[in-house]
Amino acid sequence: MGPTAVLLLSCRDRPGVVATVADFVWRHGGNIIDAEQHTDRSDGMFFQRVEFELEGFAVERDGIREAFEPVAAEFGMDVTVGFSDQRPRMAVLASRAPHCLLDVLSRWHSGELHADLALVASNHPDHAELAGFYGVPYHHLPVGDDPGAQDRAMQDLLAGHRVELVVLARYMRILSPTFVAGWPNQIVNIHHSFLPAFAGAQPYRQAHERGVKVIGATAHYVTEALDEGPIIAQDVAHVTHRDDIDDLTSKGRDLEVVVLARALRAHLGHRVLAWGNRTVVFS
Amino acid sequence: MGPTAVLLLSCRDRPGVVATVADFVWRHGGNIIDAEQHTDRSDGMFFQRVEFELEGFAVERDGIREAFEPVAAEFGMDVTVGFSDQRPRMAVLASRAPHCLLDVLSRWHSGELHADLALVASNHPDHAELAGFYGVPYHHLPVGDDPGAQDRAMQDLLAGHRVELVVLARYMRILSPTFVAGWPNQIVNIHHSFLPAFAGAQPYRQAHERGVKVIGATAHYVTEALDEGPIIAQDVAHVTHRDDIDDLTSKGRDLEVVVLARALRAHLGHRVLAWGNRTVVFS
Amino acid sequence: MGPTAVLLLSCRDRPGVVATVADFVWRHGGNIIDAEQHTDRSDGMFFQRVEFELEGFAVERDGIREAFEPVAAEFGMDVTVGFSDQRPRMAVLASRAPHCLLDVLSRWHSGELHADLALVASNHPDHAELAGFYGVPYHHLPVGDDPGAQDRAMQDLLAGHRVELVVLARYMRILSPTFVAGWPNQIVNIHHSFLPAFAGAQPYRQAHERGVKVIGATAHYVTEALDEGPIIAQDVAHVTHRDDIDDLTSKGRDLEVVVLARALRAHLGHRVLAWGNRTVVFS
Amino acid sequence: MGPTAVLLLSCRDRPGVVATVADFVWRHGGNIIDAEQHTDRSDGMFFQRVEFELEGFAVERDGIREAFEPVAAEFGMDVTVGFSDQRPRMAVLASRAPHCLLDVLSRWHSGELHADLALVASNHPDHAELAGFYGVPYHHLPVGDDPGAQDRAMQDLLAGHRVELVVLARYMRILSPTFVAGWPNQIVNIHHSFLPAFAGAQPYRQAHERGVKVIGATAHYVTEALDEGPIIAQDVAHVTHRDDIDDLTSKGRDLEVVVLARALRAHLGHRVLAWGNRTVVFS
Repeated sequence: MGPTAVLLLSCRDRPGVVATVADFVWRHGGNIIDAEQHTDRSDGMFFQRVEFELEGFAVERDGIREAFEPVAAEFGMDVTVGFSDQRPRMAVLASRAPHCLLDVLSRWHSGELHADLALVASNHPDHAELAGFYGVPYHHLPVGDDPGAQDRAMQDLLAGHRVELVVLARYMRILSPTFVAGWPNQIVNIHHSFLPAFAGAQPYRQAHERGVKVIGATAHYVTEALDEGPIIAQDVAHVTHRDDIDDLTSKGRDLEVVVLARALRAHLGHRVLAWGNRTVVFS
Repeated sequence: MGPTAVLLLSCRDRPGVVATVADFVWRHGGNIIDAEQHTDRSDGMFFQRVEFELEGFAVERDGIREAFEPVAAEFGMDVTVGFSDQRPRMAVLASRAPHCLLDVLSRWHSGELHADLALVASNHPDHAELAGFYGVPYHHLPVGDDPGAQDRAMQDLLAGHRVELVVLARYMRILSPTFVAGWPNQIVNIHHSFLPAFAGAQPYRQAHERGVKVIGATAHYVTEALDEGPIIAQDVAHVTHRDDIDDLTSKGRDLEVVVLARALRAHLGHRVLAWGNRTVVFS
Repeated sequence: MGPTAVLLLSCRDRPGVVATVADFVWRHGGNIIDAEQHTDRSDGMFFQRVEFELEGFAVERDGIREAFEPVAAEFGMDVTVGFSDQRPRMAVLASRAPHCLLDVLSRWHSGELHADLALVASNHPDHAELAGFYGVPYHHLPVGDDPGAQDRAMQDLLAGHRVELVVLARYMRILSPTFVAGWPNQIVNIHHSFLPAFAGAQPYRQAHERGVKVIGATAHYVTEALDEGPIIAQDVAHVTHRDDIDDLTSKGRDLEVVVLARALRAHLGHRVLAWGNRTVVFS
Repeated sequence: MGPTAVLLLSCRDRPGVVATVADFVWRHGGNIIDAEQHTDRSDGMFFQRVEFELEGFAVERDGIREAFEPVAAEFGMDVTVGFSDQRPRMAVLASRAPHCLLDVLSRWHSGELHADLALVASNHPDHAELAGFYGVPYHHLPVGDDPGAQDRAMQDLLAGHRVELVVLARYMRILSPTFVAGWPNQIVNIHHSFLPAFAGAQPYRQAHERGVKVIGATAHYVTEALDEGPIIAQDVAHVTHRDDIDDLTSKGRDLEVVVLARALRAHLGHRVLAWGNRTVVFS
């Protein structure tokens, strides 16, 4: 199968949306190979993901958004257009812990993540060799006396490399509001708890002290409000009184890598629509 | 929201199906509130579930199938039409174990299962009081010297009550081919293992002897080949060496009721399309 | 196998505890059929559950606690002695929702819960028939103008029936401190979220608004601090954006009954040791 | 805490075992820091894991097995003695798929697996660079015209390096009976299905064809009977009709690495006792 286009749509729910969108694709000679929609009744919102083959489509890929404009205007839609063969420029940021970074690198290397990996950056020098093994440039941006300077340097680095997706692979720095605003719903963080439980620092310690019987991990878009951005994926594991903080940390690592990967696959597959602090994740 | 109609479609995959179906609904004044599709690339098959509001639809509900015929013919579709306010006539069959029967009864009583519960039947007299508590007629059809006679009597009972959905809630009899043929993809069984492992008798004993670390339950449509019908839902639970056969049986009960309920909700929500020995279960 | 005794011990960790306890049982002619221990290194605490056969044991069951006193004194132990054939007097309290009540009743009826079910009580009249079906006395204690009076009446009812285990099966009243103090670590509540997330009222609504991808249920001992008592059992289920509050509530019901049952089995099997706001749950 | 010794015991169940073993440790000045036991009532077997501190123990570690002999003889015990600071010599065998190999390497590198990694070997040349990155010797043993020769060469390689634990990290060769006999309960394989379902080749293809709603992975000791050795760990993931064979394979990878790691941690922690084709896995 050749490359496909993906429309991600949201608007107030109104009769005729589905048929109008399907008709748009059909009229231009496209073949819909996947369509999924969701109506949120409490909010009266409609969301849709429509994927169709580019081969035979009457409009060039650069013109699709414009060609769709009449439909978007009629229904007051938010629209993004993506392509299955698009590979957004991705950066992975990490601190000391290597497991999420290694996992993202190896999945990317195996072809599981459809992105161009522009760079790895860290506030520590630790992972240069690992990045090198996978042939990815490594940038060490230490935090000195002025944390704001490091934050700005990181933004400059990412902007300079035209990065479109920022993966916080256990990057333990709080991003400035300016940083966050620069990549809206394009920064994916992995938090090591089942949010909203144990937001903030040292969630495994918090979990141990509370004596919970499950621990979790949460992948979410980063917003200004720490640990409160739209959740993309979550999972949990059972623990017992026998698990001390080290055990929780170790079991948690296995969760973190899987949950982060799930979120990245969904994001890169044009399957995530964030609205407010929630997400629609098409299957 | 008023009642809705649900089209369940399957056909060879061909361009234009989605748009043609959406157009059919739209042309008749319907509003699609949910649509989900699946293309099986290896088999080249297309499956779709389309749900639209009946209010304002130009065709009476009894005429929808006929009105849709031109579309069905054009694409060589298998089509069923269901309605959200339809309550199929359901029968629950059980043997000695009461847990699945009780669970189906209480879910039905609470309104979770959109069906009319015509009767409970069993090869044992045990559950008459329970059925009575829920106000459901109870039929005791003992297995005497001629098992075939009991099988035929059960068929007659179900046919006499115009039963459209037969729930085998741990009914430990093997149905005759004639019985199975009478309710194609309308008999839902709960098997107490994660099929295809431990088909046949005493799956918890088999699981214990094999020393597995997970046990499971499987809800499936009944076909002539025992325990090989299309799977609708499955789930598992972790076990350890500490679990003897009684423990597995007890943990398994909790799985069985949940998996059976999940399958019944999917079936009654017109969400299951069986083809061959597989299913598409729309979400 | 005949009846067994169960020692639940906790003390500061010190060399020789295990051998001294084992020797105590052995010297009196007992046969240890199960022993499990846990050392919490961060707190320096030792916990143990020792189960031994009463047959052949040199001390009558009423004298065991006293006979063990020298060991307890030597190590500064907290000790409770239970018996496998003991059936504590249990009460189930519910409000409107019937699912947890029905589940506890049916498990008790099937013999899964080793307790004498003294009574069912509620602030609503709804469940009289259900309790009657299982042959259990039903007490309706409405909340009138003086909520404190209802709270005291409930305490009197439970005390009058010498209740030793209080099950809050979705009983939506906050117990007074006096009530809680009367049954320390003997009141088990099921909360419909994975605590500490979504404590307080309407957790499914909170979960929906936060847009989480898992929901949970937590069984815990009730303490003065609402929703902060020691957690006995937790479990979760995956949800998606398609699940509205009703769906979360429905999926949550299946979690609640299973998690509550797991906690009750552990408690009744003398497997739970609470210390601070945590628990050791022996397997 | 200093190093500990671990006794893994099994024998016919008889009164006095627990006290006698505890007394043995105590008499020699040892402090039991963990003890867990299991009695299989159907088989009448007793299993125990006893861990005690070596510091202060009156017997040198090399003499413990002999000092324990009187106890072992009295009860007819099978006994192994391990040490927490022991690092068995481990080899990892892989074929083309790199994910399990990479995962074992990175866990070993992070210190999670308490073993000395002697070598990586494969019937393919693919992973030399990866092994090199982690500083582990890589041996390429191609399968030529005589598969038996490769099997013997592998045995020689492992024997020559005095390997004590062989990890089959998606090594797709069937080992000869001689090979298996050389490392009894010391070869851990990861099979990519929830055994006993889908034994043999291409389990993901089998799973897809059967239309199951869960897939799984199984870590087990290798015995002569293919895919029938004692199961150490299993886990599963939910799948849907949307998952084609590639998706199952991808989701399965995440299961395989976690299940294999869980089994290796249990084995290396002296927590696994195999008897017949089952295991006791102490927690």
